[in-house]
Amino acid sequence: MPTFKIILAYDGTAFVGWQRQARGTSIQGALEDALRALDGRDVTVHGAGRTDAGVHAVGQVASFTLARSVGADAVLRATNARLPAAIRVVRAEAVDPAFHARYRARLKTYQYRILNTDVPDVFARAYAWHLPGTLDCDAMQAAARLLEGRHDFAAFQASGAPTRTTEREITAVDLIVREGGGEWWPDHVRMITLDITGSGFLRHMVRIVVGSLVEIGRGRRDAAWLAEVLAARDRRRAGPTAPPCGLFLRAVMYPPETLADEC
Amino acid sequence: MPTFKIILAYDGTAFVGWQRQARGTSIQGALEDALRALDGRDVTVHGAGRTDAGVHAVGQVASFTLARSVGADAVLRATNARLPAAIRVVRAEAVDPAFHARYRARLKTYQYRILNTDVPDVFARAYAWHLPGTLDCDAMQAAARLLEGRHDFAAFQASGAPTRTTEREITAVDLIVREGGGEWWPDHVRMITLDITGSGFLRHMVRIVVGSLVEIGRGRRDAAWLAEVLAARDRRRAGPTAPPCGLFLRAVMYPPETLADEC
Repeated sequence: MPTFKIILAYDGTAFVGWQRQARGTSIQGALEDALRALDGRDVTVHGAGRTDAGVHAVGQVASFTLARSVGADAVLRATNARLPAAIRVVRAEAVDPAFHARYRARLKTYQYRILNTDVPDVFARAYAWHLPGTLDCDAMQAAARLLEGRHDFAAFQASGAPTRTTEREITAVDLIVREGGGEWWPDHVRMITLDITGSGFLRHMVRIVVGSLVEIGRGRRDAAWLAEVLAARDRRRAGPTAPPCGLFLRAVMYPPETLADEC
Repeated sequence: MPTFKIILAYDGTAFVGWQRQARGTSIQGALEDALRALDGRDVTVHGAGRTDAGVHAVGQVASFTLARSVGADAVLRATNARLPAAIRVVRAEAVDPAFHARYRARLKTYQYRILNTDVPDVFARAYAWHLPGTLDCDAMQAAARLLEGRHDFAAFQASGAPTRTTEREITAVDLIVREGGGEWWPDHVRMITLDITGSGFLRHMVRIVVGSLVEIGRGRRDAAWLAEVLAARDRRRAGPTAPPCGLFLRAVMYPPETLADEC
């Protein structure tokens, strides 16, 4: 009964999100279908982050236990052979049977990507939020810093989302601005990425944070307003929810005993 | 009767190519439909490069003449408002009525992108040729140099393509290898790009060049073989045609009088 930890990348555009739903194809469902074919029985896959519909991943982590005695390389190859092309297992390794991708996760890093150009980029349509017009990135960076630390993020949670506690610890927030597209994107592109690392995230939290920071970037609000929103713990006070296409689950970190060859 | 020069970017995945066809949506057709709505009459659009189905562009150039007296900014906005999201006019400018995007073009640069990774990248599926396994990039680079200069490229033309002459001048060939995906792609990615600039290109020429260079990269052939293929002028001697998804029309250059603000 070997247990595996896998690292997954997926283009979330065509999926209903991580979790199995009554309708539509989920990442979890596609993985469980592929593993059922390999293992000859139902397999339950646990994902570290339950990404929403349209949200992408480059470093999602999942775990599962198989009945068959099979190696990690075979799991990677057999799963990729059966998965849709929009989902790939990037790495697979056999781990301690006590490993659980969600319960053992200590930190997760999400990245949100904004393309600040007049004309949208045809290749980034599904992989960034296209925002034309001037954005005050210095003001956005300064405001983003206020989110670091342990706070009650109730204002940054999708209304109606059930959670025991809305307190979370954000260990790092970095808003980086790059002019020019580099080698793979056109020169007229200005890329803004927000990397946010924390112990856990409420439903839509990163997207509401980004929607609120963009209000500040557009000069409609300032950093003091963000501090007020945080203190008020009321979703109606925060900015709009940024679209899912700009969001990527980038990495999941585990305690040292399972960290040995973490990417 | 103003004449316009536009720079276009498109994700060619869902199109039958640049040229209007009996079936399917072409880039030219989509543009002509958008311009007909703007101008109230049929408009003929001339493109610098007739890209094939699935081939992309970041710097295609096209020209057309309208009946209405309208400014370049209005043309850009009105056209983008009507085009599918996979096609964007990046720039528009009023030009001399004698300008013709195809006949006036002096040099074109194509870029071919290879992703050399074990596991395909989910975000580059439609924008690069995924090649697992070892590739000898030094050998590919050395062989690519042999193509520079004026040659008869008959061996690198799709069989049955009708052309007056198969002689073309290639002014620059650069094969660049980058380890790591940079900011927007995963770290496990090795990117190989071939930039090729020339006076003109035969049908499938860049893709057959790339298919042949990959034979060399895989150690099946060497640079001397490429020289023989070039001299033999026989399509059957060259390598296979690389897939269209890796190919991008990157830029089109015009003589100085139209070069003023070329990107």
